[in-house]
Amino acid sequence: MIGITKQTAAPGATWREDLPVPEVGPGEVLVKVKATAICGTDLHIYDWTPWAQARIKPPMVFGHEFAGEIVEVGQNVTGFKVGDRVAGETHISCGNCYFCQTGDQHICADMKIIGVHVPGSFAEYISIPVSCAWKVSPSVSYEDAAFLEPLGVAIHGVLSGEIGNQTVAIFGCGPIGLMGINVASASGANQIFAIEPIEEKVNLAKEMGATTLLRPGKDDVLQAVMDATNGIGVDVVIDFSGSAKAIQSGLQILRKGGRMTLTGLPNLPVELDLVDGVIYKEARINGTTGRRMYETWLQADKLFQAGKLNLDPAKGGTFALKDFEQAFAAIKAGKPGKMVLIP
Amino acid sequence: MIGITKQTAAPGATWREDLPVPEVGPGEVLVKVKATAICGTDLHIYDWTPWAQARIKPPMVFGHEFAGEIVEVGQNVTGFKVGDRVAGETHISCGNCYFCQTGDQHICADMKIIGVHVPGSFAEYISIPVSCAWKVSPSVSYEDAAFLEPLGVAIHGVLSGEIGNQTVAIFGCGPIGLMGINVASASGANQIFAIEPIEEKVNLAKEMGATTLLRPGKDDVLQAVMDATNGIGVDVVIDFSGSAKAIQSGLQILRKGGRMTLTGLPNLPVELDLVDGVIYKEARINGTTGRRMYETWLQADKLFQAGKLNLDPAKGGTFALKDFEQAFAAIKAGKPGKMVLIP
Amino acid sequence: MIGITKQTAAPGATWREDLPVPEVGPGEVLVKVKATAICGTDLHIYDWTPWAQARIKPPMVFGHEFAGEIVEVGQNVTGFKVGDRVAGETHISCGNCYFCQTGDQHICADMKIIGVHVPGSFAEYISIPVSCAWKVSPSVSYEDAAFLEPLGVAIHGVLSGEIGNQTVAIFGCGPIGLMGINVASASGANQIFAIEPIEEKVNLAKEMGATTLLRPGKDDVLQAVMDATNGIGVDVVIDFSGSAKAIQSGLQILRKGGRMTLTGLPNLPVELDLVDGVIYKEARINGTTGRRMYETWLQADKLFQAGKLNLDPAKGGTFALKDFEQAFAAIKAGKPGKMVLIP
Amino acid sequence: MIGITKQTAAPGATWREDLPVPEVGPGEVLVKVKATAICGTDLHIYDWTPWAQARIKPPMVFGHEFAGEIVEVGQNVTGFKVGDRVAGETHISCGNCYFCQTGDQHICADMKIIGVHVPGSFAEYISIPVSCAWKVSPSVSYEDAAFLEPLGVAIHGVLSGEIGNQTVAIFGCGPIGLMGINVASASGANQIFAIEPIEEKVNLAKEMGATTLLRPGKDDVLQAVMDATNGIGVDVVIDFSGSAKAIQSGLQILRKGGRMTLTGLPNLPVELDLVDGVIYKEARINGTTGRRMYETWLQADKLFQAGKLNLDPAKGGTFALKDFEQAFAAIKAGKPGKMVLIP
Repeated sequence: MIGITKQTAAPGATWREDLPVPEVGPGEVLVKVKATAICGTDLHIYDWTPWAQARIKPPMVFGHEFAGEIVEVGQNVTGFKVGDRVAGETHISCGNCYFCQTGDQHICADMKIIGVHVPGSFAEYISIPVSCAWKVSPSVSYEDAAFLEPLGVAIHGVLSGEIGNQTVAIFGCGPIGLMGINVASASGANQIFAIEPIEEKVNLAKEMGATTLLRPGKDDVLQAVMDATNGIGVDVVIDFSGSAKAIQSGLQILRKGGRMTLTGLPNLPVELDLVDGVIYKEARINGTTGRRMYETWLQADKLFQAGKLNLDPAKGGTFALKDFEQAFAAIKAGKPGKMVLIP
Repeated sequence: MIGITKQTAAPGATWREDLPVPEVGPGEVLVKVKATAICGTDLHIYDWTPWAQARIKPPMVFGHEFAGEIVEVGQNVTGFKVGDRVAGETHISCGNCYFCQTGDQHICADMKIIGVHVPGSFAEYISIPVSCAWKVSPSVSYEDAAFLEPLGVAIHGVLSGEIGNQTVAIFGCGPIGLMGINVASASGANQIFAIEPIEEKVNLAKEMGATTLLRPGKDDVLQAVMDATNGIGVDVVIDFSGSAKAIQSGLQILRKGGRMTLTGLPNLPVELDLVDGVIYKEARINGTTGRRMYETWLQADKLFQAGKLNLDPAKGGTFALKDFEQAFAAIKAGKPGKMVLIP
Repeated sequence: MIGITKQTAAPGATWREDLPVPEVGPGEVLVKVKATAICGTDLHIYDWTPWAQARIKPPMVFGHEFAGEIVEVGQNVTGFKVGDRVAGETHISCGNCYFCQTGDQHICADMKIIGVHVPGSFAEYISIPVSCAWKVSPSVSYEDAAFLEPLGVAIHGVLSGEIGNQTVAIFGCGPIGLMGINVASASGANQIFAIEPIEEKVNLAKEMGATTLLRPGKDDVLQAVMDATNGIGVDVVIDFSGSAKAIQSGLQILRKGGRMTLTGLPNLPVELDLVDGVIYKEARINGTTGRRMYETWLQADKLFQAGKLNLDPAKGGTFALKDFEQAFAAIKAGKPGKMVLIP
Repeated sequence: MIGITKQTAAPGATWREDLPVPEVGPGEVLVKVKATAICGTDLHIYDWTPWAQARIKPPMVFGHEFAGEIVEVGQNVTGFKVGDRVAGETHISCGNCYFCQTGDQHICADMKIIGVHVPGSFAEYISIPVSCAWKVSPSVSYEDAAFLEPLGVAIHGVLSGEIGNQTVAIFGCGPIGLMGINVASASGANQIFAIEPIEEKVNLAKEMGATTLLRPGKDDVLQAVMDATNGIGVDVVIDFSGSAKAIQSGLQILRKGGRMTLTGLPNLPVELDLVDGVIYKEARINGTTGRRMYETWLQADKLFQAGKLNLDPAKGGTFALKDFEQAFAAIKAGKPGKMVLIP
């Protein structure tokens, strides 16, 4: 079959047409990939950063945001059949640890990740544990379905606390940030401040439901938020940027007693003014990672069924799988939105 | 001054033009009433039901949903001045009990109610403790401001639990139920089932954001809700009807683990199937009454400022105060919406 | 093997010595039963009540509270081995419904129960899905381990809301109620009112940590609780009795804004004063059933490891399995505590 | 009257015997101080640190932890009378801001603090707004009552999340940390790790209910906690130390999904590993400051009435007010426990 591999311990990736179709073990299903999207993680692998060097063992197919059709069903699989349209859940949790035993398998103590620890979706076929398959309705296109995994990251972050009638500030207008704004809007946020320095990206937030666009560097974020909230600050801050400055700024614009959710991953430790930013303010900070299995998926289904989502502004472009280098180049060029590959 | 009093221990009310303007004690403000709405409580007083007989000492001006302009400020009042536009908060809490001491003065152990225990708003002027005055912005009309008190009842019920992306069933499409539907819609409810037997009332729910209208008696409520929720039931039920049948039906359509909020007041004890309706289902039931002081008012302000509310379908008609008998007659005739009196 | 069956559609049960040892399917383990306790459900089956008639298909071994040693391990079982000491989790959940998918498999929409829908533990051996086996440490005796299932019911009820420094009233001093009192005490309840009409039972509550014993009929429960709480009422009421009168009394002694947890199963619908008991009071009522899988088990482990539990007062007597009729007779005679059978 | 003032803009404090008795304004009560304790804040003032220089305007009586007897009652005061025994609440909140209006007056946007912005308690008499007086029962000594204010800081931090049956690590064994350990123990914590480098201080934690004592530097905190929690980490971390290293260490020993409460004030911004410490871990961090008005006071009353507190290990010594220099010297010498002054 065709596919892209991290072939050697060096930057770049390799197009191959001679990959073996994966075997389908007990409890697994074979999925013909119809659409697969590029994540920041894939960029790390492509660029062979230290993060990737520490985790990936070449040669390996990477990629983990995908949707497709089940073409083969392994032993002991119930509830799925050939022909089912599915999106991929990336987490392969152990099932036995404290967190798996208490409903939090998405933070399993012994997690494996598709496309990092086991072969991924930048290929014609992928074999996955049935616990990583989520059925999608015929009304959702494969391309939209490939967005369900990162959409889930956005949903999990936004809905990790109350959102109805709350004033919300969202930092970062990459694909997940944009989808987060859309989810906040669909879930009844009162005002939504989209905060992102890159003009081309922040402008997309308007269509997603942002009521105010702020560009750090150009706009005075603190002043603008205080003016719009009677000097109180916002009820909720959600950071999808992973930027230290964004997180520091987030603590400033958060109202006393407010909620700050961290989802974006900073590269380095972040220096925080805990006295004024957290303690005197009685702030509540929570981290979120990945998606809840499977509460987040059910939330996504509800949003889709109610017609409340608009993923288009989060889409950056669609490429044939073979043209993956163009897709990676577009990302590096700063093109907003998520790139999708079609095998 | 002019006003309506419950003059004697008998049904009906009396128009008077010779009432003294109330005195303004320390900590009080005198408000010139610009609009005052009729509540179900007022109907009890007007009809001199046992409920009213047990509480009201004639002669007394009644009425408690109102808005107006401050025309005099008593001693020791800070933060308010002549000319301020205010809406009335009905609760006069003691300030010293356990509940007042823990942020729940709206369920004060020794509460007095405007228009029930002390003179009310069906008059040209009313004198109120400054703790019962809430400033309203010039952009909100006095008529809308008179709806803020009952709107608060709706907000408190709807926002007493998570509402964003939840499926919600609301029983009762009187004025508060209709406003509740509007608040749920504005706060991101996913689907909203409006459930009310009176055709004329349930139809108003559509404009308020209801996605499905159900008329018990004509429609099979249980079947309709289960069909629309994959057989799971709704996440949230809110009862504004006070009907025993509605509450029983609500427990049936609630999903396992769901939230059921009771706000409407049943006339009699209600027989509940606690085994299937609450225990096996692990339902969470909560009662709400009145409004939180002043969280609910702040929530109302946010909804108004975001332009998310549409009170018009909850309005039944506007009458001169003098024509109060027409207004009461309209309510008794089953006319939907809330009636407003203008002194 | 030996065991007790509900042999025919008639009251009573049958001792048998010729039962076949159950087969061990894939994903199952065979457990040699070392201790098995009698639940109220077993009494229903023994007495062949309408509840039992509607559910049980004779002949079938019943019983579901048990502990023992794994003697055989089926295919595809990981994490368990021959020789492991285990207690039995009664719930066999489907794994595919909304509730199984959101961490609430204990309220699965398609639940099967050991000893009701599939053969139970009143026998020498039982074969169970590995998801129903919970490892117990060598420091816990088999007899104590057989109490873990009903202890879990108590833990789930008590810890379904905040308990540290709360005043708590617990209705019902059967084995689960007594264990509930012990759990509340171990978890930091401030005062604990044990409420139970049977003198012999309520007296056991003292050893479990109750600070006040109240016998409805003899004691004025409302007055006693109000006197001890400055007229405010208790923060938390938990009903393990299933008595309508207890539940009605519970709503009276609950403070405004308090939590009332319902775990005991009433035989019939219960008439509740929702206005004064729930709505004006802003009470929060929640139902709990069974145990959370596996959060409750982990909580039990923590309590055991900290040496905070004392199950002895909840033990009613130990009998050879063959003498089951004596054990059932003791229960019917009103002997307090739970009866244990040793195969 | 006698008292201690920060007389000039220089280190040290001045003993005076010629201070005028404070006037009692409307809404105020005059309290004869019976016992007053020394807080870290007072040390800042005594040492005239930059923090103090920025806030204090000499000459001014300082001190804010105190208890005494009401000897005069101002106009418009209800609910208090001469002879009442009271403890002092330090916060003077504005009553009009968003936080005062939503039950959070302890984080008022325009707060004044007794002994910082207005004259304090290191004197024979203090005049305070009646909102700063909390009645104490005759069974609580004045010396214990003077500990209620800092005890409240401990209670608020510990009970800002679930504590019953939780494993808890508390950093810092100064007086507030020690009282926090006692509160956690009294509120049902499962295991309590007391973490403090100073041997003399950590040893006092044992009497307060700590189950494990850890001395950073000597003990391997991470290893010890992981060993005692099956490698999972603790459910709850509470920092009363304000040490950057403690907070960093706290994030390491916190289990995934756990709660970390920050109460101690770091001197400088703190560098945090948000990726592993918060985001991947889905930690929940919350800041707490001061005491809730008046929920915390009511919680303290409940703990006292149940006989669950033991403040003695938190007491460092009692001095005549005149001997304040000895008391300050004892603190500087590292003597554990809180020092009390008797006017």
